Amino acid sequence: METKAQVLYDFAAEPGNNELSIREGETITITNQNIGGGWIEAKNSRGEVGLVPEDYIEINQAQPFTSGGNAAPLDLSFFDSHMPTPASTAQTSNGNNPWTVFDNNASGGFSNNWAAQPEGTETGKTSSNAWPSGGHGHPQAYQGPGAEDDEWDEEWDDVKSSGGYAESEAGEGGAINRGGAHGSSMKIALNKFPGFSKSGPELYLLSKQPAKGTKLPVYSGEVGPVWAYPDYQLDCVVADPKKGSKLYGLKSYIEYQVTPTTTNKPVNHRYKHFDWLYERLLEKFGSAIPIPCLPDKQVAGRFEDEFIKMRMERLQGWMTRMCRHPVISSSEVFQLFLSYKDEKDWKMGKRKAEKDETVGVMVFSTIEPEGLPDLDLIEVEQKCDQFNRFTRAMDDGVKDLLTIGNEHWKRCTGPLPKEYQRIGKAFQNLSSVFTSSGYEGEAALTDALTAAGKTYEEIAQMVAEQPKKDLHFLMETNNEYKGLLGCFPDTVGVHKAAIEKVKEADKLVAAGKITPSDKTTMSKRASTMSYSLQAEMNHFHSNRIYDYNRVMQQYLEQQVKFYEMIADKLRHAHSQFTTM
Amino acid sequence: METKAQVLYDFAAEPGNNELSIREGETITITNQNIGGGWIEAKNSRGEVGLVPEDYIEINQAQPFTSGGNAAPLDLSFFDSHMPTPASTAQTSNGNNPWTVFDNNASGGFSNNWAAQPEGTETGKTSSNAWPSGGHGHPQAYQGPGAEDDEWDEEWDDVKSSGGYAESEAGEGGAINRGGAHGSSMKIALNKFPGFSKSGPELYLLSKQPAKGTKLPVYSGEVGPVWAYPDYQLDCVVADPKKGSKLYGLKSYIEYQVTPTTTNKPVNHRYKHFDWLYERLLEKFGSAIPIPCLPDKQVAGRFEDEFIKMRMERLQGWMTRMCRHPVISSSEVFQLFLSYKDEKDWKMGKRKAEKDETVGVMVFSTIEPEGLPDLDLIEVEQKCDQFNRFTRAMDDGVKDLLTIGNEHWKRCTGPLPKEYQRIGKAFQNLSSVFTSSGYEGEAALTDALTAAGKTYEEIAQMVAEQPKKDLHFLMETNNEYKGLLGCFPDTVGVHKAAIEKVKEADKLVAAGKITPSDKTTMSKRASTMSYSLQAEMNHFHSNRIYDYNRVMQQYLEQQVKFYEMIADKLRHAHSQFTTM
Repeated sequence: METKAQVLYDFAAEPGNNELSIREGETITITNQNIGGGWIEAKNSRGEVGLVPEDYIEINQAQPFTSGGNAAPLDLSFFDSHMPTPASTAQTSNGNNPWTVFDNNASGGFSNNWAAQPEGTETGKTSSNAWPSGGHGHPQAYQGPGAEDDEWDEEWDDVKSSGGYAESEAGEGGAINRGGAHGSSMKIALNKFPGFSKSGPELYLLSKQPAKGTKLPVYSGEVGPVWAYPDYQLDCVVADPKKGSKLYGLKSYIEYQVTPTTTNKPVNHRYKHFDWLYERLLEKFGSAIPIPCLPDKQVAGRFEDEFIKMRMERLQGWMTRMCRHPVISSSEVFQLFLSYKDEKDWKMGKRKAEKDETVGVMVFSTIEPEGLPDLDLIEVEQKCDQFNRFTRAMDDGVKDLLTIGNEHWKRCTGPLPKEYQRIGKAFQNLSSVFTSSGYEGEAALTDALTAAGKTYEEIAQMVAEQPKKDLHFLMETNNEYKGLLGCFPDTVGVHKAAIEKVKEADKLVAAGKITPSDKTTMSKRASTMSYSLQAEMNHFHSNRIYDYNRVMQQYLEQQVKFYEMIADKLRHAHSQFTTM
Repeated sequence: METKAQVLYDFAAEPGNNELSIREGETITITNQNIGGGWIEAKNSRGEVGLVPEDYIEINQAQPFTSGGNAAPLDLSFFDSHMPTPASTAQTSNGNNPWTVFDNNASGGFSNNWAAQPEGTETGKTSSNAWPSGGHGHPQAYQGPGAEDDEWDEEWDDVKSSGGYAESEAGEGGAINRGGAHGSSMKIALNKFPGFSKSGPELYLLSKQPAKGTKLPVYSGEVGPVWAYPDYQLDCVVADPKKGSKLYGLKSYIEYQVTPTTTNKPVNHRYKHFDWLYERLLEKFGSAIPIPCLPDKQVAGRFEDEFIKMRMERLQGWMTRMCRHPVISSSEVFQLFLSYKDEKDWKMGKRKAEKDETVGVMVFSTIEPEGLPDLDLIEVEQKCDQFNRFTRAMDDGVKDLLTIGNEHWKRCTGPLPKEYQRIGKAFQNLSSVFTSSGYEGEAALTDALTAAGKTYEEIAQMVAEQPKKDLHFLMETNNEYKGLLGCFPDTVGVHKAAIEKVKEADKLVAAGKITPSDKTTMSKRASTMSYSLQAEMNHFHSNRIYDYNRVMQQYLEQQVKFYEMIADKLRHAHSQFTTM
């Protein structure tokens, strides 16, 4: 019997990737459910066969997802009936416009707010296309499909073989990371946590287990609740990419040297190790701290050296951001990554990290507001809404700047230098016509005209090369923030869900589902979550202020140099003309 | 009976001007031959009626032109059989690509070279469209139809009433001055001289009359043959345009104040007076000296003040060029224009100038090479060809620069400032998002971001206004040279015709048409003409070298200032960011 599926969201196939375009509402036939990597092979009504992302469809016969086996410490089955399907939840976090989740803020009832369905997917798609990969656009901003990894990373030591596209997507979760949401949303698709249906905030809110793992204190700082910042600011240098190979040269990969400022002892890591770290951080801290995606994987080989350099630059940016985070940088898994002693140490540390149980919302159990009064639910909700509004507005602003920057990049590397070149050529052409006049005393003018022409040709080249010197960093920083901001809807979503849960507490008590004591605990824990969010927001703000000051300084400094150099060149060209 | 006409050249109607588009080879019906001003009303086969330029068509029934009545001092009837029709000759000088006249340089026989037919009219049209009048292009470069004069000049004191479009075209000759050749060709349409068919160079070459009028010596200078330059360089200032009116306010016009540096006493002139001067200079010196067209007349009222300012600026340019020419500036008619004492003096001087008989090719009879050996015909022809090649090449170079300049103008006033503005807005937008963060210590960054945003908006404005400060003059100078260079084919054409004539001398002697002594005279006079041309070319070259040095200095100086000012502004914006 054929397996049918309903298409939940539009999906446009990337050319050359064996993909199939599908439209919302369409019914398709599953032809191979075992592709892996988040993909399923399907056939449409016209008989066309291709791969579709499994999160975009709802299979009629059976759920393609299986719940993890860990028994919940508390009977939460009553929540399950209100839970959205895993597929649509995954879409929430991977969706094109994560912000739409909160569009109908607290307007509906329980299930509406529990985990809202995505809306306006179409609109999201449009705005997410701000970064065309082709033409003269900012090449570093390539946001195309990340499905194909480069050849050097195509092996994954611990990967569960899944055939097809699986090896092209590092990581075990199989959550796809493509299209519009690419790079602008965290991968905390809830099905990534062991036992999806138990990963809601109630897991923490009603947990009876004692907290495990390092305590994460939140203090009252000058700007409000803050994380505990270390005296020494960790940083690291990602450098020296080297091609390595294994299986007697059959498989090659790039290894980066990562040197933390603490030990100053370099360790080597392949891209997939970074990805492993990302997965661990996401799993462990993702509910409390937005963990930005790693730089995109890219289609291999097009500009090998440039691509490696760009990836390294972006891995550096990502690592620096992680180092700057007091919670992340001091975490065991991060420390392991930066300063494992030897292969054995690394393997053991890896295994330990993968077994960490204080993941998902349980991270809140380790957070301890120090000397901070419990917040009531109204305060918690207000803070949450405020952060949501801000990050949403900033997301719009950043995307706007990126769009404009990309257009500017195109003009600066396309038509503008061509025009200066033509001006330069026209002057030189006139100069050579003048040379043919046969008139005496022509040389001074023709030499000056030729020099002026060459100056404009030099300016053309300067104009074309300038974006790499200034706009690039402005784009990179904003691109990084676009990624970071894309994680906030997920993070805020966890808080929103907790708030709704606490709001329902009275009903739950009345229905005998929880005790009045449970209700008090829930409220207190929501307050803890809020302090965590506030600390994170304050961390975000202080970093943002630093980053934007720095990038604007850098941008403007380079712009000043650029215009000064043009003025110098023209001044020199000017000096060669004479009207005695 | 209907009068039919053949269309000789394509003509594209200007919208809103009651014109009719016609195609080469088409047969049209004349509906009104008495429109005047170079226009005829006609109907095409589809029954559409409109105005067409009379030079573009050949009327089947009768010649619309009448020869002047002055009896020739010599029987030249044998030349007449080889003369082109007046219509096609007029086209030669007003044609779209005047250079094509010399494409088949000396390849054909007598009649071929006598006054070649225009070729490649289509191509000429294309290259002449380099100056679109609309959009963001260089507004001063408007080269559209000049048929409509502005309302203030619509009266012409001495105009022969001709109804219809006549009053819209100042000048009596009725030679139209529009389309591609506009401003790039002299109006020495041969039918402008009294008695067209006697205006060929033979009039001078075989003249038996003694030379009348002031002698124009050519000396041997450092660079070769040169005109006699005065010790004092005449100049004048065109300023203070004032609206005047007559007929009790029914008719208004603009009067410009012209102050020569000699008397320092201002005289007033309307545009039509300049046009009168132009006609006189063309008639008197046009065969020997390229007389550039006056600035275009323009459709009135669109930007009244800007238009008046622009016309004044161009009249100033034209007058300065005329002042700089030793032959023109010292001529009686030019002196009259600059320094007439009173209305009576002006009227008398006008009448006298209009009666001048030493016009057309007869100007060469006043030219006297001083201490310069007679040139043989080969030298004469070589010089002529050399000048022709040079002016043609320069014409191409200038047009190329104008095309590029115009595109640059459009970019600088169109998309580029828009982009800077958007960058500025994006920074300011981000600043206002940041202001909403609620985070303490935000102000320094948001103030700096706002300032940076405003700086880019200022830069946008600077970019948009810059072309008026630099590119404008580069365009104006090149446009002036385009006009001047467009006159050379006519000037060189007179020389070419004379050379051909001298080449035919032996045949004419053999046929008993001229005496051997006439032949010697012809040869000597061709040598005189060559010295005149050489003096003129040397004048042109020295002016060109000065003009291009000056305009490039001006352009580059302004460009330097522009880039320096941008750098200054950005430096200031930069100083407001801080990463302590």
